[in-house]
Amino acid sequence: MEPKPEQNEWSSGVWAHLTDVRRRSPLVQCITNFVSMDLVANTLLSAGASPAMVHSVVEIPDFTPHIHALSINVGTLTPEWLPSMKAAAEVASQLGKPWVLDPAAVSCSGFRLKSCLELIGLKPTVIKGNGSEIIALSSASPGQTKGADSSHESTDAIEAAKSLALTSGAVVAVSGAADIVTDGNQVIGVHNGTKMMQKITATGCSLAGLIAAFLAIDSSRPLEATVSAMSVFGIAGELGEALANGPASLRMHLIDSLYGLDETTVRSRVNITRFG
Amino acid sequence: MEPKPEQNEWSSGVWAHLTDVRRRSPLVQCITNFVSMDLVANTLLSAGASPAMVHSVVEIPDFTPHIHALSINVGTLTPEWLPSMKAAAEVASQLGKPWVLDPAAVSCSGFRLKSCLELIGLKPTVIKGNGSEIIALSSASPGQTKGADSSHESTDAIEAAKSLALTSGAVVAVSGAADIVTDGNQVIGVHNGTKMMQKITATGCSLAGLIAAFLAIDSSRPLEATVSAMSVFGIAGELGEALANGPASLRMHLIDSLYGLDETTVRSRVNITRFG
Amino acid sequence: MEPKPEQNEWSSGVWAHLTDVRRRSPLVQCITNFVSMDLVANTLLSAGASPAMVHSVVEIPDFTPHIHALSINVGTLTPEWLPSMKAAAEVASQLGKPWVLDPAAVSCSGFRLKSCLELIGLKPTVIKGNGSEIIALSSASPGQTKGADSSHESTDAIEAAKSLALTSGAVVAVSGAADIVTDGNQVIGVHNGTKMMQKITATGCSLAGLIAAFLAIDSSRPLEATVSAMSVFGIAGELGEALANGPASLRMHLIDSLYGLDETTVRSRVNITRFG
Repeated sequence: MEPKPEQNEWSSGVWAHLTDVRRRSPLVQCITNFVSMDLVANTLLSAGASPAMVHSVVEIPDFTPHIHALSINVGTLTPEWLPSMKAAAEVASQLGKPWVLDPAAVSCSGFRLKSCLELIGLKPTVIKGNGSEIIALSSASPGQTKGADSSHESTDAIEAAKSLALTSGAVVAVSGAADIVTDGNQVIGVHNGTKMMQKITATGCSLAGLIAAFLAIDSSRPLEATVSAMSVFGIAGELGEALANGPASLRMHLIDSLYGLDETTVRSRVNITRFG
Repeated sequence: MEPKPEQNEWSSGVWAHLTDVRRRSPLVQCITNFVSMDLVANTLLSAGASPAMVHSVVEIPDFTPHIHALSINVGTLTPEWLPSMKAAAEVASQLGKPWVLDPAAVSCSGFRLKSCLELIGLKPTVIKGNGSEIIALSSASPGQTKGADSSHESTDAIEAAKSLALTSGAVVAVSGAADIVTDGNQVIGVHNGTKMMQKITATGCSLAGLIAAFLAIDSSRPLEATVSAMSVFGIAGELGEALANGPASLRMHLIDSLYGLDETTVRSRVNITRFG
Repeated sequence: MEPKPEQNEWSSGVWAHLTDVRRRSPLVQCITNFVSMDLVANTLLSAGASPAMVHSVVEIPDFTPHIHALSINVGTLTPEWLPSMKAAAEVASQLGKPWVLDPAAVSCSGFRLKSCLELIGLKPTVIKGNGSEIIALSSASPGQTKGADSSHESTDAIEAAKSLALTSGAVVAVSGAADIVTDGNQVIGVHNGTKMMQKITATGCSLAGLIAAFLAIDSSRPLEATVSAMSVFGIAGELGEALANGPASLRMHLIDSLYGLDETTVRSRVNITRFG
């Protein structure tokens, strides 16, 4: 059976993006949480990118101008780390370098929500979160912070994502059973990946880093680059799960699979649809 | 051969506890060291719990009231982290939420010993350490700090554990060839686990997190919940070692095994005895 | 075919060093970056050493006098961490304990270069870096800092390493396709290892920790101890790669292999030559 023309188009794009990451090995600065640094760095290395876990505020003026993309994750945010995140985001935005915000557990405190809203004001290229995180950001505004609880259903995520995309100017990516990517107008679904990936810590943070790497090599098309990164990561997870006996072996096989992905596998497994 | 009635009783309890953790997925806040965050989070996820590595002092008033249990490990303690640990422990104690103190390497400095004694003053539900750590804590008192060296033998650990349990009001768990758990009166031995687990960093920290998850679902019986968590973790290690070629593959198979544990395996492998 | 006499001599030394590390289990303090702590600790445990990730400046006066060796890595350096590094290095130097400096990404900022030069002033026993890092340090002087870019070719690394060794008084180790170790006069090449190890984050940091462990058991011969550590780590990588399907399984098999290394394997695989 022939794939549909649209499927062919996406498949070519995903493979072209991955090939470009491997060829150009973009330098991706990651200011991420303590839990995920190891897996984020290994994900980027396996994809062919060059990770740099540089986070000190005193190093950003020297270092950040040399990067190709930036990924910021607030998973273990403290007031001491926020100035570095802001400084790096400002440099990236001023120099036209793409950057990703991962608002991990944004609702866990008023401080974290406020910090994420301030970071969104610095114009991330992509905001990537799970349904709850995107809904929390979409329904908040800079002057209106709140506590940890969300009263929203995850079925609200598509509309919340579109709304957040329009107000922020960012592409918004929502990870879940089906990943959703939207620029506020187009809504794309990425159906690659497996449920067990949620049982491994730091897969979400690693995906954020990977999106930054893909943005680095196609910064003028952030929607497409994000879709490609999510599809590639999901395919690596699918291949990994076929070899795994649990979350820890899945984690290993996912990284190995990401490293070894070939054209035939990518093209045959890309599963992307257009929602709107 | 029929198992002894007492063995049957423990086996049922261990399995019931694990089933409850999987079903209720308790939210466990971990303020742990930089080395272990990844393995602690993956251990909790594989057991079915929900880990949260939230440690900033500014987030604790918003976040900690929502948790089901707390685990504090001082493995990379600095003066900057201590206020967060104290603040979280205070919230947990005030709200009746169980919490675990892991006094990792307590004897390595006077600062660390003093900090652990202050944390013990905030009424942990369980104190979990190795023999040297428990002996050091038991022989110290808040006004009497000392350096890194311990002059005690590990054979003193049972009496030290009982003494510490009585003075602190906590259940005390001593990891070792046989794990010991005591509330000061009862002394239980958990004989699951393998020696090679000591060759993997962060297994002790991960066990502390797992104990917190088990306390979350049976907070009125901290002795039994702690015994169950230690047995489950040890059984996962035994299954892991049977598949492993060294410490790194043991680490992977341990997590996979913890994720996949079934009733028959748990019931047949639980190895718990009553010492006193 | 008989191995050459020189090869025999190196092989015996490497195996004797590893045996001594396993027998004496030296206590190695590591002040390293957030990304690598887990792998550094597991590398040291698998080699038979005892790692201690103690980094708080308040603990150093109590703790560092008890260690056998120290490893300092600046991979995620901030101004807050530098005083601890300096304090530990000073204690080590004053007490005649060997210590290793890993100037990770030294060129990424003027702050990092300046910090590394200050640490070199505290007399490390060994400086271990990649070619770019060693060239950057060799061409810099304490009063002359610069930004992230290096204008040097990696073929300059041998001369740069010799020069840095002579000016610093340290043995200088350069990791690469062939590792180079020099005291400024002798130049030794270590040809063990595999290219895929560069696709795993923290292998360089782990090697620095391992060198510290080997220095701990033969501190009067830092050149030979460094060569042995690099050969052992490389052999473990070679064995690991033979079993691996990608970087993540290589990481696992590397650690397992390091744990299980036997005399026959070590002796037959040691690949060390004298360049000058």
